[in-house]
Amino acid sequence: MTYAHIEEFKVRDYECDLQGIVNNAVYQNYLEHARHEFLLSKGVDFAALAAQGLNLVVVRAELDYRRPLKSGDAFYVATHFAMQDRVRFQFQQVIHRRADDVICLNALIVGTGMTNSGRPRVPKDLVALLGQ
Amino acid sequence: MTYAHIEEFKVRDYECDLQGIVNNAVYQNYLEHARHEFLLSKGVDFAALAAQGLNLVVVRAELDYRRPLKSGDAFYVATHFAMQDRVRFQFQQVIHRRADDVICLNALIVGTGMTNSGRPRVPKDLVALLGQ
Amino acid sequence: MTYAHIEEFKVRDYECDLQGIVNNAVYQNYLEHARHEFLLSKGVDFAALAAQGLNLVVVRAELDYRRPLKSGDAFYVATHFAMQDRVRFQFQQVIHRRADDVICLNALIVGTGMTNSGRPRVPKDLVALLGQ
Amino acid sequence: MTYAHIEEFKVRDYECDLQGIVNNAVYQNYLEHARHEFLLSKGVDFAALAAQGLNLVVVRAELDYRRPLKSGDAFYVATHFAMQDRVRFQFQQVIHRRADDVICLNALIVGTGMTNSGRPRVPKDLVALLGQ
Repeated sequence: MTYAHIEEFKVRDYECDLQGIVNNAVYQNYLEHARHEFLLSKGVDFAALAAQGLNLVVVRAELDYRRPLKSGDAFYVATHFAMQDRVRFQFQQVIHRRADDVICLNALIVGTGMTNSGRPRVPKDLVALLGQ
Repeated sequence: MTYAHIEEFKVRDYECDLQGIVNNAVYQNYLEHARHEFLLSKGVDFAALAAQGLNLVVVRAELDYRRPLKSGDAFYVATHFAMQDRVRFQFQQVIHRRADDVICLNALIVGTGMTNSGRPRVPKDLVALLGQ
Repeated sequence: MTYAHIEEFKVRDYECDLQGIVNNAVYQNYLEHARHEFLLSKGVDFAALAAQGLNLVVVRAELDYRRPLKSGDAFYVATHFAMQDRVRFQFQQVIHRRADDVICLNALIVGTGMTNSGRPRVPKDLVALLGQ
Repeated sequence: MTYAHIEEFKVRDYECDLQGIVNNAVYQNYLEHARHEFLLSKGVDFAALAAQGLNLVVVRAELDYRRPLKSGDAFYVATHFAMQDRVRFQFQQVIHRRADDVICLNALIVGTGMTNSGRPRVPKDLVALLGQ
């Protein structure tokens, strides 16, 4: 699989919990930021869309935690995008530790667009941008 | 299914993101807190175990986001526990909005115990406590 | 000093960092939630105001960390409100550990209202509500 | 004032709250990460010290919020270090928006070292390292 986007990170100490490892919820922060940077690279601005009344939302997340990230670890998130059907898209995302490329987490994130009235909708021009 | 534990919450405004709804990562915070309170009710202290060198960790999370929680929403997390095999346990967790009992999120969280040397292990007395 | 509002909390494990104590930034989350609950008790809804284009914002925070909160600690935030001048209000907030009433943190938070155009403004009816 | 350390950041969307701006507590995360990177650049590892029983802790924070950071903003934290007395050190930290160098936040953070027994202590070799 060729990855559409690579985003580099470094663990920040406040992201670690009392076990001394990155808290499990924080990985979703990393994944979200990587997705938004991918979207931006395609000309799609999550915050601007929200301000215009189209909210990109997560409808399902599957996360396999393989190895914990720790204080000081550099890592990257590889993001691969595909349309799942007419109103849902999916991101396959993998977190690799930078030092040895070991996989720390595998994720499948399914999302959709949602108008303010709660109707799922992914505009065609958005699909066109993401497919480039 | 009978639920082993109910934990009450209220959305805090800092948990909402620029879409005006609770950020998707925050639900994992809610679920973790509900699990730890369930564990405490069984006499199992997550933080004390970590200090003793046994880390309870999440190995897989499946989250279905059904309805967003918003500023001011009261809600509860229902947690059901079962052993999956000898070294893995699973939590089925459901978030309900308090006002109308609508399901906002369904989750399956699989965990294990991990010694400081990285060996998966769930001590028998822990299993006995949780099964009560 | 009589306190205008008391808000009860319990430390959640994800709020603790690798030192095993509540991370210093998290106290601002506690303080904010206590302020917003105080405001709600006066009929002032932070989120609704933001949606209407009036943002209540913090302009200065002074925090004295006295004792760390730890996993499992119950605590409360006492909040006292006063207008500082025509466009600024201040909250004196104190965090007490519930078990022994020991003070864990003293804070002075200065805020203002801000219209979408960036003009500081605290509507008179808001001041009237808060002063009750 | 010459700054000892510059750390580059970019706002992540999950750091913004329902007002569409970075939540006030998140700035303390930025400041902490910048301090820890400064310490690392001097050979002082916050997480390793904690594991060895010396906790660097914040005892006072003064934060002046000048301009809000928003989705997509690049910014940097400038950190200046000085010993305040024998057991307390202080960091003057300024957050600048990268695009126009505008100051978004001024902060004074006072810290100390704390042994596990709760005694304030800053070892001489630590002071020597930081003063270089």
